[in-house]
Formats: sequence, C-alpha cells, structure tokens
Amino acid sequence: MSPAPDTLRVALAQLDLTVGDLDANAAKIVATIGEARAAGAQLALFGELAVTGYPPEDLLLKEHFLRDARATLDEIAAATRGIVAMVGFPERAEDVYNALAVLADGEVRAIYRKTYLPNYGVFDEHRYFQTGEGGALVTLGEVPVGLTICEDMWEPGPPAADEAAAGALVIVNPSASPYHATKGAARERMFAQRARDYVAVVLFCNHVGGQDELVFDGHSLVIDHEGAVIARAAQFEEELLVATIDPGAAAAARLHDAGHRPGVRRTRPDVPTLARLAAPPGAAGPVGGPVAELLDPVAEVYAALVCGLRDYVAKNGFGHVVLGLSGGIDSALVALIALDALGAERVTAVVMPSPYSAGETQADARALAQGLGIAALELGIEPAMRAYDEVLAAPFADTQPDITEENIQARIRGNLLMALSNKFGWLVLTTGNKSEMSVGYSTLYGDLAGGFAVIKDVPKMLVYALVRHRNAAPGGPLVPASILERAPSAELRPDQRDEDSLPPYPVLDEILEAYVERDQDRDQMVRAGLPADAVDRVIGLVDRAEYKRRQAPPGIKISTRAFGRDRRMPITNGYGA
Amino acid sequence: MSPAPDTLRVALAQLDLTVGDLDANAAKIVATIGEARAAGAQLALFGELAVTGYPPEDLLLKEHFLRDARATLDEIAAATRGIVAMVGFPERAEDVYNALAVLADGEVRAIYRKTYLPNYGVFDEHRYFQTGEGGALVTLGEVPVGLTICEDMWEPGPPAADEAAAGALVIVNPSASPYHATKGAARERMFAQRARDYVAVVLFCNHVGGQDELVFDGHSLVIDHEGAVIARAAQFEEELLVATIDPGAAAAARLHDAGHRPGVRRTRPDVPTLARLAAPPGAAGPVGGPVAELLDPVAEVYAALVCGLRDYVAKNGFGHVVLGLSGGIDSALVALIALDALGAERVTAVVMPSPYSAGETQADARALAQGLGIAALELGIEPAMRAYDEVLAAPFADTQPDITEENIQARIRGNLLMALSNKFGWLVLTTGNKSEMSVGYSTLYGDLAGGFAVIKDVPKMLVYALVRHRNAAPGGPLVPASILERAPSAELRPDQRDEDSLPPYPVLDEILEAYVERDQDRDQMVRAGLPADAVDRVIGLVDRAEYKRRQAPPGIKISTRAFGRDRRMPITNGYGA
Repeated sequence: MSPAPDTLRVALAQLDLTVGDLDANAAKIVATIGEARAAGAQLALFGELAVTGYPPEDLLLKEHFLRDARATLDEIAAATRGIVAMVGFPERAEDVYNALAVLADGEVRAIYRKTYLPNYGVFDEHRYFQTGEGGALVTLGEVPVGLTICEDMWEPGPPAADEAAAGALVIVNPSASPYHATKGAARERMFAQRARDYVAVVLFCNHVGGQDELVFDGHSLVIDHEGAVIARAAQFEEELLVATIDPGAAAAARLHDAGHRPGVRRTRPDVPTLARLAAPPGAAGPVGGPVAELLDPVAEVYAALVCGLRDYVAKNGFGHVVLGLSGGIDSALVALIALDALGAERVTAVVMPSPYSAGETQADARALAQGLGIAALELGIEPAMRAYDEVLAAPFADTQPDITEENIQARIRGNLLMALSNKFGWLVLTTGNKSEMSVGYSTLYGDLAGGFAVIKDVPKMLVYALVRHRNAAPGGPLVPASILERAPSAELRPDQRDEDSLPPYPVLDEILEAYVERDQDRDQMVRAGLPADAVDRVIGLVDRAEYKRRQAPPGIKISTRAFGRDRRMPITNGYGA
Repeated sequence: MSPAPDTLRVALAQLDLTVGDLDANAAKIVATIGEARAAGAQLALFGELAVTGYPPEDLLLKEHFLRDARATLDEIAAATRGIVAMVGFPERAEDVYNALAVLADGEVRAIYRKTYLPNYGVFDEHRYFQTGEGGALVTLGEVPVGLTICEDMWEPGPPAADEAAAGALVIVNPSASPYHATKGAARERMFAQRARDYVAVVLFCNHVGGQDELVFDGHSLVIDHEGAVIARAAQFEEELLVATIDPGAAAAARLHDAGHRPGVRRTRPDVPTLARLAAPPGAAGPVGGPVAELLDPVAEVYAALVCGLRDYVAKNGFGHVVLGLSGGIDSALVALIALDALGAERVTAVVMPSPYSAGETQADARALAQGLGIAALELGIEPAMRAYDEVLAAPFADTQPDITEENIQARIRGNLLMALSNKFGWLVLTTGNKSEMSVGYSTLYGDLAGGFAVIKDVPKMLVYALVRHRNAAPGGPLVPASILERAPSAELRPDQRDEDSLPPYPVLDEILEAYVERDQDRDQMVRAGLPADAVDRVIGLVDRAEYKRRQAPPGIKISTRAFGRDRRMPITNGYGA
C-alpha cells in the first residue's frame, strides 16, 4: 500500500443521453468533459454505456453499430486533455463486452469489462455481452482506482472486494440503474455499506432521463470510506456533480485494521493495474460537494412520470400531445403530468361526451382544462355511435346491447384522438392506470389507443395520492375536489360504476401488489387476510388480460414489476393460479 | 466399454402440450406412456419441459408453479411401470434448472440438468435457469445412455462428447426447437453429424404445435451411429414415433477405431452414471421405424401457419374467427389458412366496402368467400365515414384530406371487426404481411386491430408463393387469378397503389431480408446491388415503425428474425442506419 495520497477532485456527469444517437451523445460528453475540467476536476465519470445510451437493445447485434460506437469513443478520447475521463461503451473484441474505457491524454488508456451481467427484470445483458474477467485497477497519480460497472457492485464480493484488497482506495461505478419507487434510498444504503466494507470512496454515476419504458433517476453519489454521502446529485435532473474526495483518509483508516490491508485480504492473485496515469492538475477545495435533498416517496414518483413523459416526447420528435379528458381522476393526473412536462401550450385536451356522460363530469373536464390553461376541443361522439348502430344493424339484429356497444364508444374516442394525431402530428397520451391495465378494465383500440401510456404502471390508489401531492404544490389545487371525490366510472352505460365490475380499489390494489409484483399464490393472499372471492376473481382477470397488455402502448415503469419487458407472461397459458 | 448389447425399442412422443396446463399435460403424457408400452417400447422420450410446455416464461418466477410442476412430475412418475420414461420439467432445488427426469418403477430415478442455456433470439433461459454441471449417463440394461437437453447438442463438444467418451451408445435430446423456414433440414444435418462424430444413436424428440408466436415443427428423429435417419416423425403433427435401435452396432463400430473408445477420448474425468435401470421387456423388430417425408419449403411454411393458427384458437378457447376480406392477396391467404386450420363453418369473412373500393375487388372478395364456403357479412363503412367527417368538421376546418382520412377508414373497419368479436366471441384475424409490418404500411387500431396476426412474419413475395401452393392442391384453385394478378392497393383513396408509396415488392423484400434478418448496414446492401435510394428509404421506414409493431397483435414466427421477442429494438432510437 502506498502512503496516503492527496485529495482528488472528481466530476460525476449525470446526463440524459439518447439511445443510438452517437453523435449527440459524443457532443454532450465532450462538452461535459470540458465543463468538468473547467471546474477543476481531475476525473470525469460518465454513466454505463454512455456512448450508446442505455439500453441499446438489439442495436448491439449490428456490426456497424458497434463499429460506429468505437469510432465515437475514439473521438471522445481525442478530446481528453488535462483530465481523465471514464466513458462506457460496447466493446467489440473477439466477443462483445459491456465496457468502461479510461481516457487520458487523447487516448483510450484502459478498458474494463463488466463482470456481472444482469438478466432479470427489464435486463437482457446475457443476450448481448460476454462476461468480463474480474476486477481491475488504474492508478491516478498515487491513487489506485477500482473499476466496476453497475451490477458489479450490487453483488457483494468480487470484483470490488478484490479491487479493494488489491489496494483500490476509490471504486468507480458507472451505472444505468432504472427507477422504481423507493429504489434510490435502497441503492444509497447499499453503496454506503459497500464503501464501509471496502474502506474505499465510492463514486456512483447514474444516467438520468427516460428511454421508452424506463426512467433513470440520477441520484449519483459520492460516498466516503466511512459510508457517509458527501455529495449527491439531484433526482431526475441532469447535473455535473463536482466533489473533492480524500483517498488518503481511506488509506489512513486501513492502517487501523490490518485485516483490510491488501496482502491479508487478497482473495485472488491477479487484479491487474491496467494503466498508470499521471494525476491531472486539479482545483483545491474542502472534501465533499453539493448534497441534493431527496424527494419524498410520492413526489419522487411524480417527478419520474414528468421526466419519463418529457423525454419520450422530446426524443421521439413530438411537439405537442393530446389526451382525452373525461372528468375522472386518471385523465386529470395525466393532464397535470403533461402540463408539468411540456407546458400548457403543448397540451390539448379533448372532451368527448356521449349520451351517457354525466353533465357534472363533463363540466369538471372543462373546468380542469381551463384551470390548467390548456386548449380543449369538444367532440360529441353521438353521430358516430349512431353510424355504427346503422352499419351493424343487420348482424346485431337479434342481440341485446352489451359490452360491445360500450367498447364502440371507447373506440370512437380512440379514433378521434388518433385522427387529431394523424392530422396535426400530436402524440396521443392514454390515461389508463395500472389497476385497470392489470384486470383488463379497458378497451383495446379504445382508451388503450395512443402512443404513450403515462400512468400505466401507477395503481389507482397512488393516482389519488399523486393528484393530492400536485394539488398541494404552490399555486393552489389544480384538480377540483369533485374529481377527487367522485366514484370512479367509465360512463359507458347509465349509472355505471367501476365497483360494479371490480372489487373496491383499496382491496384490488392490495391483491394486485401481491399477485403481480410479488408472485404470491392464492392461498398466500387469503392467509394474509384478503377476501378469497375477490382474490380468485382478480387472478382470473389478470391472467386473461395478458392479450390486451401485449397491445398496449409503452409507459413509464415506476413499480418493481411493470407490465412489459419486466413481466413476460405467455398469452396462451393454462396455469390456473 | 461393455460388450455389444441388444437392440432397444424406443418411443419418441412428439406432443402438442399447453404452456401452464399441468393437469392436461400430465394426462397426455401418462396416456402416451401407456401407448408406448403397448407398442413394445422400453424407453419413452418426451420434449423439453414437457410437464409445463415451452416456454413457460415468467410462470417460472412463481414458487407455487414450480411446486405444482414437481407434484405433476411425481404423478407422472407413479404411472411409469414396465417402461422407462424421460420427461422434462423445471427443477426447483437450491436454484432452478431446466431438467430432464428419468422415470422408472414408479419413481424419479435420475435428474439431468441442461448445460447450455440459450439466451438469444426468442430465448431467455438465463432469466430463469442456472447452468447444469455437464454430461451424465443412465444405463438401460446394458446400454449407457447420454442425457442432453436441446441446446446442449447444438454445441459441439461437451456435454454430449463427454458422454460418448464415457461410453454412451445412445444420446437422447428432448427439445423445444421452434420453427423457422428451412430450420428442420439444417437441424437434421446437424444431428446426423453429431451421431457420426460420437458414433452413437441420437434420439431427438421435439414438441409440435403453436404457443403464441412460436410453432414447434415436430420432425423428431432417430439417427443411427452412422448418421442415417432411421425414423422420422411428421412435421406439424402429433406422433408417437416408435423405432428399434441397435446400440450394439455403435459399440461394434467403435471397435474399429480405438480413438473413439472411452478411455482414450475422455475429456473430463467424471461423467456420472446417475442410475442403473433394468431394461424393461420390449417388442422385437427390425432396426428402424417409420420415416415421414419432408415437406417442400413452401408447403412447410404453409403447414406452420395452419398449425400455429389452429393452436392459438384452440388453446385460447375460441370457437370461431372473423377476418376482413378486401379482395387482395393477403386476406385471401389468411382466409385459406383459417379454412385449413378450422374448417369453413368456423370462419366468417366481412366485406367492408367504402366509396374507394373498386367494384372488381369487392366482387373478388365475395367470390372468394363463396368459393371457400365461408360465411360473408357485408358492412358498408360510408355512414361511419360521414359521421367522423361531421364530428371532426370543426377541428379539421382549415385542413386538406390526407392520410388521416385513410386511417379513419381502416379504423372503422377495425372497429367493426372488433364489434363482431365482442358481440359473438370471435377471434379477429389481422391480415397484414411482414413487408407491410416492416415499413409501417398499416394503420394502428385499423388493419392492425385483432387478436392474431397470422401472416405478420410472411414477406409479400412469399404470400404469393403460399397462395399459389395452396391453389395447386387437389380440388383446384380456390383463389381467383384476378386476386393474384391485381397490383396491390390499400384502396383508401382513388387509384391508390402500394408502389406509389413503397419500392416494388421484390426489391422491398430483398432489402428487408438484408436489413431485418441479417442486420446489414446501408453500404453492404448497396454494394450487393440494391438501389441506394430505396435502401435509404426503407431503413428509415423500418426504424420509424417500431412503435406500431410494439402494439401489433402476436403472430406466427416463420423467419429467422420475427418482430417481437426475436428482434428487440428501442422505439426511442437515435441511430441512423
């Protein structure tokens, strides 16, 4: 072990990159390296696979994409003077690796390959990457720095433990760690424990921003060797987090416990030092950096939804969004999120009354649009309902009205929103929540028609909490109390209420949490006190609705188990519980 | 090595099982064991994960599902008397394994764990399973039998090579090998080479039937130690393939080449013999068994589509299907497939003319329905078109007709088909082909509305070939020549033709094959002689249409790269080639 080195000034670049847009990502990374240098940082750390954005999915199966990504990395490397930068990229060697390049003096000086490849939940990394060879170091001046990538540090032990045993005083962890509610707090606790275990400074740099169904929450961290968070970036916002760290304090602390010294704790013989880099000049300063406040749990989800929507709209080139405003709580929440993500002038609401629409509900919808300051169109659907009745008169001659006619109304509304989308280039936002999506209480091509399903992963009870949270923000309540208080109804037939067809939402949401998120069986749920008849009904509804979910638009994952890549169930499924 | 043993009589149970339906699968497996015993077989081999069906996807993340699967296996074991059965199941031990149980005397006598877990294409096995420990044997009387599962034998070398070196004269390979065009022939060549390499009899038992987007093609094989196919089950049909094999001949052949003897070729020290089973009594008979003829390449695809549709309908409990018949070639093909899969009385066609529908096209649609003997409804969409014009008059006041009005027509048709589906419980079949699906030449919630997209993986030129193939079947042409000859048109505006918007289909299909299936870049395609302007256009169209494909119904994979689980592209994607 070397004698205690000086402090280091580091910059964690928490950026919102775009999957596949190599040129834009390179420009942003190069500009950020310049900013970091200007801020006196000696090391700039970027998120996992920063060159390509995360997750690039099957773009990684294209030779030319991998070639272009490498060329982009080399361009970035050329811009690295007077600072060391660590930038993730997919390395095409004899195989393909999820890699971290260490750039200095205009060159790629070292490449570390990710050891643990997540292949659960939303992750498919075994589809693309070969496993790396284990831990590795670079030295930065006197400081041995251990290299890891994301999942590598979620596992206790190697490679980080090996690196610490080999002398690493700093361990970097560039990540692409997607958000779900409360994950940030758990992640921070985990990294703090790792820092204590390894008696090393931990630099966790996460992406921020939306990519299809995922939102990266940022919340990058600098944690000292005692597990104290000495700098923290904001959640859901880009930030260049600049901090001063004291690797010497970690080295000094190890003197007090011989068991932590490399010779004793070495668990494998060869943790290579890939490069020995001169420490660039850095600005002096006190140890630590800015520490952002954490959002409370509901505010955090709200911020995730705003961030996810804003990025989906921007990165897919939309200027404007449109949504149906029913006067119910779900579309009210989506309107709020759209307002906060895009501004009132980029949101249009459409009120689409039918003969079954209650006057108060429609009035609430209009009042809400006015209160939010968003444009509202009014399109009555009755003429279209009559036309379908006429066209279908012959085949339906001997039948009674049923759910068919309800679905036609929903589909007319879907068609009208899509017509506005086609004519004016607007993105249609759907407004269904996770409780409905779970049990199939929705109409394919009707209320499920649209490009982005903002709250598809938000259970109904959380919908209420989110609206109350937003209503409490400065400026006063935007959603009228009547919308919060009205019993939920699809208003597709006279006096319809959701609770005619479904268990009360508090019970429904509890069953869904147990069944969908925790994969509990019927008996476990009943033992936990949930009503057996409701449990049986909900299980059947969830299983049968898989075909609808398969055709639903993408939406923002905020739970531990979002429908989509996160929960891959067969449609054809004979399993009964 | 033992002296040459007697012949063995084996039964390969090529079954159509249902994912998740443990009781039904068990009943079928137990009945088949009885049939195999009655046919004098000493060994009955079933497909991969036969107990659960394949792929069970995230059902494997439920403890209770794994527990129920094990209980089901034990029930099956109890029925195993006077015969040895090999049955795949997911083994819940300290981890989860894709396993093969060897059942005899009413008990589970041995369990082999799959070594190679595919995690590419449609496969996600690293999501669920831990890797097994390598090759293993059981002896059946005098005969050492090597155990493998599916992917294990697609890799040259261990575990099969180890097993052969350890003396295996027979290697079993229960599989779930999904179909794509021409795969069966390549697979047969591969297994024949393995049999020659290992000087062992190979028993390949595949599933048959459809599971959501996959079709298993059967084509189970008994291959002798010289690589000759001595028994072959039919493609796309259930079959109990009973054959007599001669392990002694394999042993005798090895005498002629000392290099093949276990002591010399052993590559790892421990290939355990998991169980020594008495050989049950078997019927005598000449070596070999029935050898089914292989279908030609176009007939094979047609059979796959019929099989996939039949199973999706049956396993999801539908009695009847409905489709829009336009008078074009795509819907004609889907009608033929539905006819062959379900019979005329279970198919309803709907002709939905608009003012832009040519009289001849409509006449062709009616004539086709009549020729097929399927019921045809006629629903003119003009009243609905007028209603949308009325409802949208205000917002569209200052606009010109464009693709919006075309999409409205398509969506009215989609709504009408869905109304019939809702009212009568019919499954809506969509009729779009892969060429359209690739470039987004289709309307979300319009022609893309439906439960099953029968030909979504069939390129346009193959659509023609399939119709010609079916027209050549006994009974004379069912599709009128005018449908085959007419220039493709969506008929959504006057005198519209597909080639106004797209390259000619022969060129388009060639570009799509290069871009979608082989992931070539622009320059490779242009160097191969494809027109640069068309290549550029098609790449842009394919990339931009990802959002439509994400909401398309499931359909049958027949290519090496089907949209869906097989090609996982981001919607938000800044990569430009």
